[in-house]
Amino acid sequence: MNRLPFDEVQSTLAGVLVRLGLADERAKTCARLFAETTRDGVYTHGVNRFPRFVGTIRNGSVNVKAAAQRVAGFGALERWDGNRGPGNLNALAAMECAIRLGREHGVGCVTLGNTNHWMRAGSYGWQAAEAGMIGICWTNTMPNLPPWGGLDPVLGNNPLVFAVPRAKGHVVLDMAMSQFSYGTLESYRKRGEQLPVDGGFDAAGNLTRDPGAIEESWRPLPVGYWKGSGLATMLDMIAAVMSLGQATHQLAADPLLEAGISQIFLTMNPQALGSTLRTEQIADDIVASLHNSRPATEGRRVRYPGEQTLRVRTENDNLGLPVEPAVWEQILAM
Amino acid sequence: MNRLPFDEVQSTLAGVLVRLGLADERAKTCARLFAETTRDGVYTHGVNRFPRFVGTIRNGSVNVKAAAQRVAGFGALERWDGNRGPGNLNALAAMECAIRLGREHGVGCVTLGNTNHWMRAGSYGWQAAEAGMIGICWTNTMPNLPPWGGLDPVLGNNPLVFAVPRAKGHVVLDMAMSQFSYGTLESYRKRGEQLPVDGGFDAAGNLTRDPGAIEESWRPLPVGYWKGSGLATMLDMIAAVMSLGQATHQLAADPLLEAGISQIFLTMNPQALGSTLRTEQIADDIVASLHNSRPATEGRRVRYPGEQTLRVRTENDNLGLPVEPAVWEQILAM
Repeated sequence: MNRLPFDEVQSTLAGVLVRLGLADERAKTCARLFAETTRDGVYTHGVNRFPRFVGTIRNGSVNVKAAAQRVAGFGALERWDGNRGPGNLNALAAMECAIRLGREHGVGCVTLGNTNHWMRAGSYGWQAAEAGMIGICWTNTMPNLPPWGGLDPVLGNNPLVFAVPRAKGHVVLDMAMSQFSYGTLESYRKRGEQLPVDGGFDAAGNLTRDPGAIEESWRPLPVGYWKGSGLATMLDMIAAVMSLGQATHQLAADPLLEAGISQIFLTMNPQALGSTLRTEQIADDIVASLHNSRPATEGRRVRYPGEQTLRVRTENDNLGLPVEPAVWEQILAM
Repeated sequence: MNRLPFDEVQSTLAGVLVRLGLADERAKTCARLFAETTRDGVYTHGVNRFPRFVGTIRNGSVNVKAAAQRVAGFGALERWDGNRGPGNLNALAAMECAIRLGREHGVGCVTLGNTNHWMRAGSYGWQAAEAGMIGICWTNTMPNLPPWGGLDPVLGNNPLVFAVPRAKGHVVLDMAMSQFSYGTLESYRKRGEQLPVDGGFDAAGNLTRDPGAIEESWRPLPVGYWKGSGLATMLDMIAAVMSLGQATHQLAADPLLEAGISQIFLTMNPQALGSTLRTEQIADDIVASLHNSRPATEGRRVRYPGEQTLRVRTENDNLGLPVEPAVWEQILAM
């Protein structure tokens, strides 16, 4: 594992994107989002994901010349068309608009159809929190998760994000609807480890902690069994209905061909109805109640969502971003 | 189990409530919500729950003379104070206002602090859907769920609701943040059955399907382990911050004394940006994709959230509401 300065990672990725046809400023922003994702420790969706993202540009799934644009608006709600542009730039623009709407109306919502994979879901939660707003956003995905009681992967793992701003560290939850992603299953299998809890069904239809058995059955578990199955359905339905966009069942079940997905960006302004001082105190007190509770393992304090991110971010800011040499060689050759 | 006509159940409960001091119309509405909950098959939170509700009126946790009122507003956002009135009436009023705000602004939000247990969470999702709106709402609760990595029940099981209107049957998800409620654990134990999946930890800290062992350890599982633990934290934090209300850690850990909780009611208007015809079709197609997928058990079609409710509702409308004789005797004596 190499360690590279943030700026070097960002400018290298931006250079590739400019050669692929992105305008300078857009390339810089798109590259920043990838670099920040690696900096924050979400290695599956940062620099390591970049070659696949380039693949979706090269095969036409992502149109680098296209940007998201407003199609319709009604008060605190706007509908945008992503025009199949780069998913992270589209999502950034949509959340930026939702933040503005939330400032103007107390609550704001942007629905974004016809867009592409936004890479790290949490990015847009951190974005809202940095702007002092509560952010809630989600995306649908290609079909990759069987519903409870079903064999076919007709649901998406539809990542869902909640973010609350806080001077002492934003609270940000980024959760997909599968208990374990295929990437996580693969990591466990390669390390020869069993999952810590049941992660899916084996070929015989029994719950199992064996990652390889789940990869073979294609039956990972929805988070909370029937509950996550229902939640994934609702997120897909609201995103598609409100954006007039595609639902999971209409998307190609191939990461390189998945295109034209649907997303929701919601904001609430905590300063609209109360003083920042008071709302910060309420959030701080909840964090303290977790920190002061008894841990299940001695010395391992209960954490709030996003707490670990800040620790990793600081470490990677100090030491440089960890980058796999093989991936980096691949990117340098692009 | 007796079967009683809906109207008889409603008027009997309303009579009790009037004797306890509720105004006629409010008593009728409050009783309707209890009767509808039993009619829809959520037996834990309908008529069976009524005696405990009366207990919270008698001990002063619920003030029957108090109603929720608007405290502050900013555009599409309003903050209400529940004044510790009956929780289901407060929630109904808050969602009614959120529906109005959503109609006016495309999206609407009411935050409700200082309120009480709203009984069945799903009621307010069905309410939004009946009005043609997408509804999202949640509540915090008294502490009853240990966070992931912790021993103390410092989280609430914070029910979360998503609802999408549909002419062919609204799609409504009502999920708490624990994998199994204490009520469900008790039912399994009394029937001498093991849970279908792990439901919590035993005294030794091992995952178990034994309902009695979980009741003894007081360590039920959050839905999806670490994921539901994070989600419960976010719901509590957003509800408390936006309502300037109490967080879970401030609430009495006793169902009779739990009072002054915090809730969020969000609506989106699907008609604001598109035709009803088109949005209905999108929702119908998602339902069809579930129905047409292969079931894990032959002959047991995959269901959408809320589908089972409609079946039970029809049955109970036809046969009468199932009421436990002992509970009914108790209510008749009130």
